[in-house]
Amino acid sequence: MTALREDVGFLLTRASGLVVRATNAALADLGLRVRQYSVLVLADDAAEGISQRDLAEVLGLDPSQVVALVDELAAAELVERRPSPTDRRQRLVAATAKGVRLRRRADGAAAVGLQRQLGDLNVEEQGTLRGLLQRVVDGPEDAREETRRAG
Amino acid sequence: MTALREDVGFLLTRASGLVVRATNAALADLGLRVRQYSVLVLADDAAEGISQRDLAEVLGLDPSQVVALVDELAAAELVERRPSPTDRRQRLVAATAKGVRLRRRADGAAAVGLQRQLGDLNVEEQGTLRGLLQRVVDGPEDAREETRRAG
Repeated sequence: MTALREDVGFLLTRASGLVVRATNAALADLGLRVRQYSVLVLADDAAEGISQRDLAEVLGLDPSQVVALVDELAAAELVERRPSPTDRRQRLVAATAKGVRLRRRADGAAAVGLQRQLGDLNVEEQGTLRGLLQRVVDGPEDAREETRRAG
Repeated sequence: MTALREDVGFLLTRASGLVVRATNAALADLGLRVRQYSVLVLADDAAEGISQRDLAEVLGLDPSQVVALVDELAAAELVERRPSPTDRRQRLVAATAKGVRLRRRADGAAAVGLQRQLGDLNVEEQGTLRGLLQRVVDGPEDAREETRRAG
């Protein structure tokens, strides 16, 4: 329609919005939304659980948003906050047995939702897209270098 | 960190969020945010202006969000609502002279912000990413077919 259609930033936002919508629709029967599902995956994949700080960083969310998401999942008994085995003062978010079971079903549903939007891209093209997006997420080399120096 | 990093849906959301953040930072000096900039671009690119309905569709936003964005831009005298030349009952959003001038400066700033995040991808890779994202935004062929039949 206009030059916006050529703009990679605009296309990223639109593609992301459409994939989120398709995935939310696919997860609705399980009572989950995409962000809750992402927290559940991260909590389940981390052997001892994951800190809310790490959740915020990986998901690119504000700490207050993460607290709200964890509260929702904890109220549904899908995750729980446990003391870290290495630092009792720190609490980690871990999936409950009920959460692990739901996550397995949600994995399938989320994949179906994603493919509904990506359906025109074959496996190789999806791999290319994945690799390019990983590099966008990692950011330019010099920005990583700055972060490393600052850290 | 986990399997999420391999998930194209998650990567899209993260990449989009990072590019929006970089672009917002680049536009801040001009008093614009990405969504306002997108509305300004669409209003400027359409010869006679663009309807709020079309804005909502192109941007993937709710009509109420579009009304709020247009109100903000109109208050800053960057766009105005004019009667459509072909249908006096319909009002179109068009850029003012002030809006056109700001848009030109914003184009440069937004491009800088985008490149700050995409900097590791060369021109050819950015073209590949653009083409793949356009296909994700268009959605699978059978979904387009359904839309066409429904329409």
